[in-house]
Amino acid sequence: MADADDAMRRFAVPDHDDVPEDLRARIDEETERAGFTPNVFSAMAYRPSHFRAFVAYHDALVEETELEREEVEMIVVAVSGVNDCLYCIVAHGALLRIYADAPKLAEQIASNHRTADVSEAHRAMLDFAVKLTERPAEVTEADVERLEDHGFSRRAVWDVGSVAAFFNLSNRLAHLADMRPNDEFYDLGRGDD
Amino acid sequence: MADADDAMRRFAVPDHDDVPEDLRARIDEETERAGFTPNVFSAMAYRPSHFRAFVAYHDALVEETELEREEVEMIVVAVSGVNDCLYCIVAHGALLRIYADAPKLAEQIASNHRTADVSEAHRAMLDFAVKLTERPAEVTEADVERLEDHGFSRRAVWDVGSVAAFFNLSNRLAHLADMRPNDEFYDLGRGDD
Amino acid sequence: MADADDAMRRFAVPDHDDVPEDLRARIDEETERAGFTPNVFSAMAYRPSHFRAFVAYHDALVEETELEREEVEMIVVAVSGVNDCLYCIVAHGALLRIYADAPKLAEQIASNHRTADVSEAHRAMLDFAVKLTERPAEVTEADVERLEDHGFSRRAVWDVGSVAAFFNLSNRLAHLADMRPNDEFYDLGRGDD
Amino acid sequence: MADADDAMRRFAVPDHDDVPEDLRARIDEETERAGFTPNVFSAMAYRPSHFRAFVAYHDALVEETELEREEVEMIVVAVSGVNDCLYCIVAHGALLRIYADAPKLAEQIASNHRTADVSEAHRAMLDFAVKLTERPAEVTEADVERLEDHGFSRRAVWDVGSVAAFFNLSNRLAHLADMRPNDEFYDLGRGDD
Amino acid sequence: MADADDAMRRFAVPDHDDVPEDLRARIDEETERAGFTPNVFSAMAYRPSHFRAFVAYHDALVEETELEREEVEMIVVAVSGVNDCLYCIVAHGALLRIYADAPKLAEQIASNHRTADVSEAHRAMLDFAVKLTERPAEVTEADVERLEDHGFSRRAVWDVGSVAAFFNLSNRLAHLADMRPNDEFYDLGRGDD
Amino acid sequence: MADADDAMRRFAVPDHDDVPEDLRARIDEETERAGFTPNVFSAMAYRPSHFRAFVAYHDALVEETELEREEVEMIVVAVSGVNDCLYCIVAHGALLRIYADAPKLAEQIASNHRTADVSEAHRAMLDFAVKLTERPAEVTEADVERLEDHGFSRRAVWDVGSVAAFFNLSNRLAHLADMRPNDEFYDLGRGDD
Repeated sequence: MADADDAMRRFAVPDHDDVPEDLRARIDEETERAGFTPNVFSAMAYRPSHFRAFVAYHDALVEETELEREEVEMIVVAVSGVNDCLYCIVAHGALLRIYADAPKLAEQIASNHRTADVSEAHRAMLDFAVKLTERPAEVTEADVERLEDHGFSRRAVWDVGSVAAFFNLSNRLAHLADMRPNDEFYDLGRGDD
Repeated sequence: MADADDAMRRFAVPDHDDVPEDLRARIDEETERAGFTPNVFSAMAYRPSHFRAFVAYHDALVEETELEREEVEMIVVAVSGVNDCLYCIVAHGALLRIYADAPKLAEQIASNHRTADVSEAHRAMLDFAVKLTERPAEVTEADVERLEDHGFSRRAVWDVGSVAAFFNLSNRLAHLADMRPNDEFYDLGRGDD
Repeated sequence: MADADDAMRRFAVPDHDDVPEDLRARIDEETERAGFTPNVFSAMAYRPSHFRAFVAYHDALVEETELEREEVEMIVVAVSGVNDCLYCIVAHGALLRIYADAPKLAEQIASNHRTADVSEAHRAMLDFAVKLTERPAEVTEADVERLEDHGFSRRAVWDVGSVAAFFNLSNRLAHLADMRPNDEFYDLGRGDD
Repeated sequence: MADADDAMRRFAVPDHDDVPEDLRARIDEETERAGFTPNVFSAMAYRPSHFRAFVAYHDALVEETELEREEVEMIVVAVSGVNDCLYCIVAHGALLRIYADAPKLAEQIASNHRTADVSEAHRAMLDFAVKLTERPAEVTEADVERLEDHGFSRRAVWDVGSVAAFFNLSNRLAHLADMRPNDEFYDLGRGDD
Repeated sequence: MADADDAMRRFAVPDHDDVPEDLRARIDEETERAGFTPNVFSAMAYRPSHFRAFVAYHDALVEETELEREEVEMIVVAVSGVNDCLYCIVAHGALLRIYADAPKLAEQIASNHRTADVSEAHRAMLDFAVKLTERPAEVTEADVERLEDHGFSRRAVWDVGSVAAFFNLSNRLAHLADMRPNDEFYDLGRGDD
Repeated sequence: MADADDAMRRFAVPDHDDVPEDLRARIDEETERAGFTPNVFSAMAYRPSHFRAFVAYHDALVEETELEREEVEMIVVAVSGVNDCLYCIVAHGALLRIYADAPKLAEQIASNHRTADVSEAHRAMLDFAVKLTERPAEVTEADVERLEDHGFSRRAVWDVGSVAAFFNLSNRLAHLADMRPNDEFYDLGRGDD
């Protein structure tokens, strides 16, 4: 797992062999699916119990949800853009390109979701996620109702907010550790893939 | 579980009977320990899979850690103060009073950790947590080393940052749902308890 | 007056005997009423002429006003929350609990007036006070009229604004001197007082 | 007192005859000295008891002080510049030009005290006043000591901070009322007066 | 050209004789018109090719435009006020006084355009310029349409935005070099000129 | 020039035939070099005189300079990242990849120059450019000297600052017009080009 040495720069990336067996299984599964081990897995293994909860939360957010996967990734990229998080912009930018089949959307949303090529409903969704990121105490019932006006159920609003909230955690872990995106992520899902 | 109806105001608090059995067991255990059900449990049951991961992450942060529990609560209160989160200031303020046996510390740290009655090492710890909250992209290796100069191991820095990061998630969930602290939390751990 | 030594930490608290007679009389009167000497009196005696004007202004604001005393204290706590002022949050938090007979209101308003248990008119009042605190140059006639729509007279708007303005002074004096709230304030007016 | 009608735009300027006698005497005295009635007097008469305390505080700050009057006016202009307060920039800009005998200093300090033509000690004084204005909770003992290093006594630091704090009140009253500077102030103390 | 030595403080002002001939001609022309050499010309000669483009852009903005010259200067002063730029506030403040024949307008707009003595259309124009300065990514089609509602053509909106954008360049060059306004600018266009 | 219709969304892109001949020549030259017409050319032709000055200034900045072209592009991408400017991030991100022969550098600098793979001298250069962008009034002689300590000549500091200043103009023009990057820019200079 030599390539993982640059997964993060402020904490020592553990040897694959020292990682508990259940996490190794999860990492291996992810590696097989992606063709490489996303660095967040190598980095989070630094603290196995944190790793398990982090991955479980992430999985819950994409599995028990009213949102399409591409909507989840739109939110992730918008929030990570606001928080200036290289790892998440690049890694989830790749996922967004793939899930939305839209090679230019990641750069658009990461820099300014207000002028991105998305529907009005999705723009409202990203407005909500960005407000919860930048000025969480100012989110009011009126903001929730505006999302409902755009067709989101109350249940879906929970999901929009939860994904935004989770990546406010995730972005800060990446900044804390100086996590580095794998080289592969920079190019995945671009025009000629 | 009638008292829980005010646990949050923007989403419907589920009936205790409708909550999956494993979560009910966890809630009951918490209720027995505290003498009341902390509202965050009633609220998070809205989405069982999110609840499980949220609680697991929280437990990991207080169990696999280099920090004393009172240090964890100091960080929670400082971060929640910056994020203006009523639920976490009041609920974790109570925990801080109890764990640190310091009835005035919660108000001090929630309003301004810079002049709170804490050691210089703890002030540095809170400076780090607040910076990761307010300006995460500006955290550098030099900030990590400053914490090490105050006696924190590199491993402990991960924990300081992880607690801060997690409550940037938690505060936003509370704002999203307009979670309300239980009445009991306001008074727990004050002078004459 | 030994207890007053911790009234502030950056300037020397004067001996009670060295304080001019008129101020001593005022301090003694306050001490008799409260059962202890609020630290702001001990601290402000550092400069007798400033003390006199400060107290006179404060008295004018609670005496020549269209506002109820509990409204004044709501504004004080909201402004002091925005300015992160420990002394005023704790001391006026106690006064708010007492005047409004509402043991949870201080924590609610200090952290986020937007979700506090107050009427819509009072929320508008606090919005105005917070805007005048955070972005004073952006206050316009439209903001004044919005308060009038909520039933405040033009004369009352002056009072809302003046209380907010005065505590922008007061909070900064407390930060300047590192004033400390008396222990008594932390618990006054809570549920079982 | 017809000219005073434009003293402020959001509240009615009282007729001179309706103003209590002690205030009228004070206004007349000021008018005689300046050759015109500064609009702040006409405006503050809206609430006589506030007027008395406001003027008393202002007088205390310029009378019981370790600072030269031109230093007081430097602080006022710097703070008012940060707070974007037209009335105080123009009226106290005139006073600064006169007291410091420096016709260009007001514009320099109001726009950016960092490059104004002042001594290093005065720049440190203005840094302190601006920090107490913009980020009051971040003022620490180290900031106080830095001013002492520039030759200010601890007592003088109180005065620097108090003037800054008072004009955080004053600027907000002016914004609240939309106070307008008298025409005379714009030109007073310029080169060829 | 001895007087120009203070044109800027961080870079050496070139000798007039060392300046390329075409620039010297332009400087001389400006000197003849104004009666003195505006310091920006002396300063920008530091890099002749930059000087040429800078002046050409400025000239284009005041020549190929839908705006009156006094409108251009209003925008310049508002933007420079937001950016705290002494040189541009003072030099273009003088131009504004002259072009608008309004001796008090510069101080009003530089401190707070919201309460300046301008028409509602001009206030909207300045709102737009200030938003493009402070929060450029948040400018939307709705902002453009709001200006159109006030009678500005779409073409004129380009000009409002372009002047604002150019002075975001110009203000930063002045801050970079610590450019100083000529003494003459402070008094030009005041009441008794 | 049908493809140019999406060059910007808030103003009409002029027909190539209606563009003055000298600009058409310049556009054609650029088109030949790049293989496509960068949208900024199509958009700026909206106002020919502005176009000429804009292009002349840009050319001066890359021609009369102490900086390497890749340093110029680093500054452009850092400033555009701070200003959230899609057009400049994507178009100049491509140029940066090409000039620096570094396919990952654009994403790194656009999101957070502090952890980008650049030398310490280049990080100081980007710190300076970002400070001049975000807090221009706070740039002091000490900032200039810090750059000199990293080996930049005083002359080079002018260039660093001028490029940063120019893209504060350019980013705002792009936001004003809602300029859109050509599809080609998204992929140029990536790993397998």
